[in-house]
Amino acid sequence: MPDRHIVLPLITALAATAVCAGCGSSEAVTPAASRTQTTELSGRQAASYDSAGNLQRPERHHEWVFIGAPVTPHDMNDGQAAFPEFHNVYIDPDSFQAWRDTGRFRNGTVILKELVSVGSKSMESGNGYFQGEFVSLEAMVKDTDRFTDEPGGWAFFRFGEAPNYAAAGARMKTESCNECHSGATQDYVFMDTYPVLRAARPATAQASH
Amino acid sequence: MPDRHIVLPLITALAATAVCAGCGSSEAVTPAASRTQTTELSGRQAASYDSAGNLQRPERHHEWVFIGAPVTPHDMNDGQAAFPEFHNVYIDPDSFQAWRDTGRFRNGTVILKELVSVGSKSMESGNGYFQGEFVSLEAMVKDTDRFTDEPGGWAFFRFGEAPNYAAAGARMKTESCNECHSGATQDYVFMDTYPVLRAARPATAQASH
Repeated sequence: MPDRHIVLPLITALAATAVCAGCGSSEAVTPAASRTQTTELSGRQAASYDSAGNLQRPERHHEWVFIGAPVTPHDMNDGQAAFPEFHNVYIDPDSFQAWRDTGRFRNGTVILKELVSVGSKSMESGNGYFQGEFVSLEAMVKDTDRFTDEPGGWAFFRFGEAPNYAAAGARMKTESCNECHSGATQDYVFMDTYPVLRAARPATAQASH
Repeated sequence: MPDRHIVLPLITALAATAVCAGCGSSEAVTPAASRTQTTELSGRQAASYDSAGNLQRPERHHEWVFIGAPVTPHDMNDGQAAFPEFHNVYIDPDSFQAWRDTGRFRNGTVILKELVSVGSKSMESGNGYFQGEFVSLEAMVKDTDRFTDEPGGWAFFRFGEAPNYAAAGARMKTESCNECHSGATQDYVFMDTYPVLRAARPATAQASH
């Protein structure tokens, strides 16, 4: 994984825009207006890309930091659920540490959504929804330097179906993903249903991006 | 946390039983008949205890390895759910590595269950159950040396209610917990609903304890 260490507070970003205007960098700096307050791309990075720009699938993502698990089953959606499964959602560990410090998603943040089937509706603890088998794996990556045209700098990727996830995930259409994500509470992330993120957010952090 | 490093394969355990018969150790070796095949208590230990035998609450348990999240809401249990919440379940990272190697829960394994309220039943992704706020935190710890009288060597602890979890958790009655856990698939753990554990279990591991 690349270990890029680029810290770009707002004022530096403005300077870089001027300096890089004609340098042809593939990581062109975006206009300050589209940036969040903190734009650092520092520390270990979970996101790396192949030559086609596909996202390399992270290794051992089950050891990342779990943030929440909604379930939206068919039988609560007239058999027409968009995702008739549990959504197990994770953030990469180093970006979680940045979140603990700032309450913001740093550039380089990777959030994974692994869909898991409903395996049972009754066990010793009662009736309910119980996780079954892995179904598919998707990611969203924030990088306002790389994904300059995407709202919030978030791009979406898909690794396909379990158990044969692809080694690299192709982009999904941002507009399609943002039909839901644009309604999220903070920076395209559904904070309302991620108690782990809310509890770890420092009291000083603003709730909006 | 203590960093005890005691590796006791079965044959060593038998030898230790003889050697330690009169040594008065507080970590008396249990009869071989009650042991699982692998009884190592090695590597970093997540479990530590105060002088009263209460389990010290682990720090930053949200960074442990998540293994599954059943939800058993009131409205699927005639308003009488035993746990009307999500159960977010974690294993300590070092015991997860041992699990990856052996497909067994080593001595020292800590499994946490954090109950999380149902916060919403409708969001952008559809109708369902969405996590709300933390409710309470409980643990089960396997240690066939310490909990010699407990089935499988598992003891159960409770840290009370969120947001003021106790610094140390008192024991719960094993019989009460085992009203459910004795029906679990492998070694008192409900493997059926923990896809992360199933996927990480080596192919060579036996499915029973």
